Amino acid sequence: MTSYLITGCSRGIGLELATQLASSSDVSTIFATARKESPALKDLIQKSNGRVVLIHLEATDSSSIKQAAVDVKKALGGNGLDVLINNAGIQDYTPKGPSTMSADDMTNIFSTNVIAVHLITQAFLPLLEKGNLKKIVNVTSTLGSIGLAGTFLQAPTPAYKISKAALNMLTVQYAYQQADAGFTIFCISPGWLKTDLGGVDYADLEVGVGAKAVLDKVSAATKNDNGTFMNIHVKEYENAEGANIYDGKNPPW
Amino acid sequence: MTSYLITGCSRGIGLELATQLASSSDVSTIFATARKESPALKDLIQKSNGRVVLIHLEATDSSSIKQAAVDVKKALGGNGLDVLINNAGIQDYTPKGPSTMSADDMTNIFSTNVIAVHLITQAFLPLLEKGNLKKIVNVTSTLGSIGLAGTFLQAPTPAYKISKAALNMLTVQYAYQQADAGFTIFCISPGWLKTDLGGVDYADLEVGVGAKAVLDKVSAATKNDNGTFMNIHVKEYENAEGANIYDGKNPPW
Repeated sequence: MTSYLITGCSRGIGLELATQLASSSDVSTIFATARKESPALKDLIQKSNGRVVLIHLEATDSSSIKQAAVDVKKALGGNGLDVLINNAGIQDYTPKGPSTMSADDMTNIFSTNVIAVHLITQAFLPLLEKGNLKKIVNVTSTLGSIGLAGTFLQAPTPAYKISKAALNMLTVQYAYQQADAGFTIFCISPGWLKTDLGGVDYADLEVGVGAKAVLDKVSAATKNDNGTFMNIHVKEYENAEGANIYDGKNPPW
Repeated sequence: MTSYLITGCSRGIGLELATQLASSSDVSTIFATARKESPALKDLIQKSNGRVVLIHLEATDSSSIKQAAVDVKKALGGNGLDVLINNAGIQDYTPKGPSTMSADDMTNIFSTNVIAVHLITQAFLPLLEKGNLKKIVNVTSTLGSIGLAGTFLQAPTPAYKISKAALNMLTVQYAYQQADAGFTIFCISPGWLKTDLGGVDYADLEVGVGAKAVLDKVSAATKNDNGTFMNIHVKEYENAEGANIYDGKNPPW
């Protein structure tokens, strides 16, 4: 039986990851963090027979993060946490390109997408060390691949792209640091999903398809995947070209 | 005759770049920015016959950046700026590794090493568009190569590494955006230099060697190098292995 903590569960892929895991018989508890419980998350929790547990967490507030770790520790009653999925993230909309980015966007997005992931990982490391799987999954994006930057020129989110390249570096450093302790730490791009963040009208994939593909990778991951950058595998898109290829192969950094 | 603006000239490689350019007959003016004029920079300026011009610039203060652009525009008297070298940077000292990074370090280093580079580039773009060379050089580090992270495990600067990966992504995005306008925008690792930042006792190269190798790359760069990540070429180190290889080949992202 596996325990998960997933950040950013009020909507989008976080909510969908929690929903899919809630119906799996291998899962003991899903700690679903949110700044504020959305109606959809409340509904999921009510129907989950105690399996999905709300954890209040403000990603940019270090004392909130520490309190969340205390709350989860108490709920686990001496057991460890098996899997941490750092999913919460924000993005900019900068249609005129990088030279028009706002410094505030850069600061805020780095704070949520990188610093918060670090602080959350740091806070939950002691519980993960006691867990059976020791997996840390950082939700990144192929938009954070510097090598693929030419492919994603049209995506109007330069500050988000910078934050995801930075997150990838954070991930790899943690992976090296925790390798000897038996951790599997990697980042994964969930695809361009029909969510509020991805855009409901134009995105490639239903959120359920992306979430399932992420969970497939998470459960299959072994120590050999420590420090990697994964892409999801969706059969209908494995031979696509350019931006919307989901072939399950690791993208370049 | 070429004009340069170099940030972070009070010491280290910035001061050395300005010093070497000041003795080149191809150079018209070197705008040397500093928060505060150091005795060494003052000395260089006094001996330069007006060739090296002090520009006050606080990298983390957007109004200071805008004022610096006004000052340089005035000094150029209608001419453009040919080369911008974003050199100013700071780093952390985090010997216990990424899980012990301070959030303040991450914020401050991202602000100086990434956001300030963006704001300075943005502020000087109009002058660079009028320049003859349209080169923007961002001083990065092989420590910012995610692909080489395993090589640099021992370097106790996780927040700096993250900032340089982010800077590389910023650089590539600018390179794509400005390519059609004739720009050559790249990042370059100057090597591990005997400076206050690099550490005088242990670093590989004298600052003069690194600065010369950077300037060799800057002057040789053509539009084909737009969007690349360069390493310096130092003959004695071209066959070295691991961390201290300076073979002039582009590192992985």
